[in-house]
Amino acid sequence: QPEEKDTKEKKTEFSLVRVKDTWKCQPGKKINKDRVDSVSAAKCESVTEKGTTWTVISPIVFTYKVTETQGLLDPGNDTLLLGHINDPQQLEDIKKSNKPIRRFVVIDQEVFQIYGSKLTEYLTAKNVSYKILALPTTEENKSMEMALKILDEVNNFSLDRRTEPIIAIGGGVCLDIVGLAASLYRRRTPYIRVPTTLLSYIDASVGAKTGVNFANCKNKLGAYIPPAATFLDLSFIQTIPRRHIANGLAEMLKMALMKHRALFELLEKHGSVLLDTKFQVDNSLYGCSSFMAASQATHIAIMTMLEELAPNLWEDDLNRLVDFGHLISPALEMKVLPSLLHGEAVNIDMSYMVYVSQECGLLTEEEKQRIISCMLSLELPVWHEEFTMDLIQNSLQDRLKHSGGLVRMPLPVGLGQAIFNNTSYEILHRAYEKWCEEV
Amino acid sequence: QPEEKDTKEKKTEFSLVRVKDTWKCQPGKKINKDRVDSVSAAKCESVTEKGTTWTVISPIVFTYKVTETQGLLDPGNDTLLLGHINDPQQLEDIKKSNKPIRRFVVIDQEVFQIYGSKLTEYLTAKNVSYKILALPTTEENKSMEMALKILDEVNNFSLDRRTEPIIAIGGGVCLDIVGLAASLYRRRTPYIRVPTTLLSYIDASVGAKTGVNFANCKNKLGAYIPPAATFLDLSFIQTIPRRHIANGLAEMLKMALMKHRALFELLEKHGSVLLDTKFQVDNSLYGCSSFMAASQATHIAIMTMLEELAPNLWEDDLNRLVDFGHLISPALEMKVLPSLLHGEAVNIDMSYMVYVSQECGLLTEEEKQRIISCMLSLELPVWHEEFTMDLIQNSLQDRLKHSGGLVRMPLPVGLGQAIFNNTSYEILHRAYEKWCEEV
Ligand SMILES: NC(=O)c1ccc[n+]([C@@H]2O[C@H](COP(=O)([O-])OP(=O)(O)OC[C@H]3O[C@@H](n4cnc5c(N)ncnc54)[C@H](O)[C@@H]3O)[C@@H](O)[C@H]2O)c1
Ligand SMILES: NC(=O)c1ccc[n+]([C@@H]2O[C@H](COP(=O)([O-])OP(=O)(O)OC[C@H]3O[C@@H](n4cnc5c(N)ncnc54)[C@H](O)[C@@H]3O)[C@@H](O)[C@H]2O)c1
Ligand SMILES: [Zn+2]
Ligand SMILES: [Zn+2]
Repeated sequence: QPEEKDTKEKKTEFSLVRVKDTWKCQPGKKINKDRVDSVSAAKCESVTEKGTTWTVISPIVFTYKVTETQGLLDPGNDTLLLGHINDPQQLEDIKKSNKPIRRFVVIDQEVFQIYGSKLTEYLTAKNVSYKILALPTTEENKSMEMALKILDEVNNFSLDRRTEPIIAIGGGVCLDIVGLAASLYRRRTPYIRVPTTLLSYIDASVGAKTGVNFANCKNKLGAYIPPAATFLDLSFIQTIPRRHIANGLAEMLKMALMKHRALFELLEKHGSVLLDTKFQVDNSLYGCSSFMAASQATHIAIMTMLEELAPNLWEDDLNRLVDFGHLISPALEMKVLPSLLHGEAVNIDMSYMVYVSQECGLLTEEEKQRIISCMLSLELPVWHEEFTMDLIQNSLQDRLKHSGGLVRMPLPVGLGQAIFNNTSYEILHRAYEKWCEEV
Repeated sequence: QPEEKDTKEKKTEFSLVRVKDTWKCQPGKKINKDRVDSVSAAKCESVTEKGTTWTVISPIVFTYKVTETQGLLDPGNDTLLLGHINDPQQLEDIKKSNKPIRRFVVIDQEVFQIYGSKLTEYLTAKNVSYKILALPTTEENKSMEMALKILDEVNNFSLDRRTEPIIAIGGGVCLDIVGLAASLYRRRTPYIRVPTTLLSYIDASVGAKTGVNFANCKNKLGAYIPPAATFLDLSFIQTIPRRHIANGLAEMLKMALMKHRALFELLEKHGSVLLDTKFQVDNSLYGCSSFMAASQATHIAIMTMLEELAPNLWEDDLNRLVDFGHLISPALEMKVLPSLLHGEAVNIDMSYMVYVSQECGLLTEEEKQRIISCMLSLELPVWHEEFTMDLIQNSLQDRLKHSGGLVRMPLPVGLGQAIFNNTSYEILHRAYEKWCEEV
């Protein structure tokens, strides 16, 4: 079939303009960009001999909040129930109304063991008509079956998606499953994230990703729908095991290496104290200064994470600094499951990449040493025998396919900066050998 | 807890700006709206005693094509394989490359019976490395189980989401299930819609909705993710049963009544001919003029549908003209399943609403008669004994809850225009009695 000649093609551009209760096509591309509400889609029609093509360009704007608070489960605090509401009028109406608020809550079973009675007391004190679903949201259970189980219960609750966001309380697994279930329910029901592990506090808290594992692959099914709001309360972290603190520190270190030197220095200096105090203030040994470090570190981590995720919410841009440590680790993590935690696998990946970076001349020997030492002080593994050259090659295969012989990936440059470097297999090999030798 | 004083609150607004490989916060709200690629998220930080709140505003732009073509399965036509690609360079590269294109196709079993060999020949002639999955995509099977079955096969195919969109060929049920499966796979895999019924040709073809039934409710689970492209070929319609043509005409009539008088007059005049000719050109009895009517009617239906759907892709605006005929019909449809088709239930709903409209003084007696006559000439049912006052009240309950005593709903005003009218129960009652008496 010969290509259509340009001369035979008629192109018309339209904007859609709201006129009373309906939308009308208006010729021209004069979209008034300051009033996205009144004009929000452009259509371009092209007519050829073969037929008509309509091109629809339609923007969707996501708005969500990430809010730090103290005493999230204190009856004096409204955040959990009302913190997601932006419209002052709506807020006013709810506060004046004496109809009980309705909420459906999904909570990690272990978190429920510890905080369940506090949560129940809170909801009772607030006169909420609620249903709490406590589930074993472990990595092994992170499946569509569990999402469907949640959806069954949501449906039995007769949830009204316009006024009753689903609340998820737990680690990253719980937040990911509930986020997916909510996103599916009636094609989109708002949900709220309350992260209770350090990893989810600084990572799953800020992005749009939801998901479950499928066919033995991590997060193979999911959606990119951000929560209506994320509520952060550091006090949950006090009950997580030390190893899980280190797990979260790995993701912090990632952001530090990619874009924030001060955060790196903070982790270098205070890392082990953060492990001891679990990011809490009331610790007699270290007192207030450690909490300053804790709150600064979480702040910077969230801020830098938001900077990278918000403009690329749907990961359309493949050049992502946040992928550092995540190129080879997913395969490692699934291979040795459940022996390595997510952040541990990420750290092993980062440790290797530091060697690659040095091999590329982006890091000095001294900088490399400082990074590895910092990792060790955070009690994170820096090497694993299953992290083989084969695993590396297979994992990077996909990136290779689309870029002609060199692998494009984020690499640290000095401390707190990064670039996307096109790296040859030779360098990957040399770095691997040196890495195995030295660490 | 007392409200925070304004004076204690510090608000900062940021835009995110791309700087080399990373994103940086830039104070101020100076988003350059002409360059959405370089600045695409605003964050507003507010710091109070209680903690920090980050507000993320992040737009996602959907772009998709709806393309009419003839001979979609003729080996001379590239549309099915390449019609979704926008980038001329990418198109060039694919055409030059001698690597076979890979495609995963899901097709309705009955459609496969009729068009399967043609499809296989097409893919073979085009040297495509393919997998065809023919499934009984009926309303009863429209479930998450079937979506998961598709996903299993997609996974076995090792589909590359960046270059291999999933193709769905069939009626609305097939397109809805496959759309959902694709949207879930790796959090979003592009898919292509090829509608083969009249209903899906003019309706499921243009919007973003995907879904499956759940817990006995229609489309209770789903997503709002538009296809990469929809390819329209009227010749598929020639093999669908007469009753299913009428079914599609009901959705056309909806658009006609809501916003296009000429379309109404076209259906009034040519409706029964369209039923006879099944929208095909090669019919000796009616010849070319009937095909003009067919192509005009489908054009206008798609155009008006696009106008209403594109600016409200996620149905955030609850005032939707396209909801006409869809307020009470879903309950009727599920109640009597499988005895009524979707469009038939919609038409019964519209027929009743015409009486409501007249009772509100929005339609003259003569206009009402013309509409009902037109419905009958399209061989659509205009009344059903299970469409009771109870069913009406229960279905409108939800709309009532949010609007203080009156039901806000789209109603026709004359022929080809509509408004959102707040209607009392008294009027609904009176209209119901008159409707039962007269039709
Ligand atoms: N959506 C995203 O953007 C995103 C980002 C990073 C990670 N993730 C996902 O998150 C998961 C990992 O998250 P995780 O590390 O939080 O794991 P997790 O959810 O499995 O929680 C770890 C363990 O800690 C327990 N726990 C949770 N909170 C506790 C508390 N306050 N006190 C005591 N015990 C507590 C849990 O019961 C669990 O046993 C992975 O599945 C990963 O894919 C998602
Ligand atoms: N996503 C949307 O925007 C949207 C819009 C409208 C309707 N829908 C959904 O679409 C469904 C109804 O669609 P439908 O009416 O196309 O039903 P359908 O998909 O069940 O198809 C109807 C019947 O026609 C057969 N068929 C399909 N194409 C044929 C052909 N070319 N020749 C012969 N037989 C053929 C099918 O096998 C089936 O038996 C509903 O589930 C509804 O919810 C979705
Ligand atoms: Zn991670
Ligand atoms: Zn419909």
